[in-house]
Amino acid sequence: MTRFRVAVHIVPRKGLLDPQGKAVADALHALGFAGVADVRVGRHLVVDADATDARSAEQSVREMCARLLANPVTEDYEVAGVSVA
Amino acid sequence: MTRFRVAVHIVPRKGLLDPQGKAVADALHALGFAGVADVRVGRHLVVDADATDARSAEQSVREMCARLLANPVTEDYEVAGVSVA
Repeated sequence: MTRFRVAVHIVPRKGLLDPQGKAVADALHALGFAGVADVRVGRHLVVDADATDARSAEQSVREMCARLLANPVTEDYEVAGVSVA
Repeated sequence: MTRFRVAVHIVPRKGLLDPQGKAVADALHALGFAGVADVRVGRHLVVDADATDARSAEQSVREMCARLLANPVTEDYEVAGVSVA
């Protein structure tokens, strides 16, 4: 078994309202960042897990997302990277 | 002006306790994911902003992180990518 570090992004599904992102965009405008058109806020998780190889580590994290980490109704997830921890 | 999409990760600073990550790791163990050693939970922001070039878009988002998005005491941020939106 090797320890792998898997990074995953969980983001609000496209087309769904993202009130937290809207609030951040408004706050940035208030601070003078006039060029900001849109902000979306999601989660960035880094999971350190033992697995036989990188492929099974990634597969395992995808299962974690489907079962616990992401809300399948409102969120999408993508594995951003797998490396040896 | 071109619209750029800048992705940024804001994560709890290394060495600091991450109670949310600990709770997620415990929940994953309870679900049977025994191989999970550690989880860290941060934020993944995607900022769409108008700028003259990619470099100034990134610089602008770094300033947003320093002034509003990240807590300088407990969090680190890194720009994960800049692309044309």
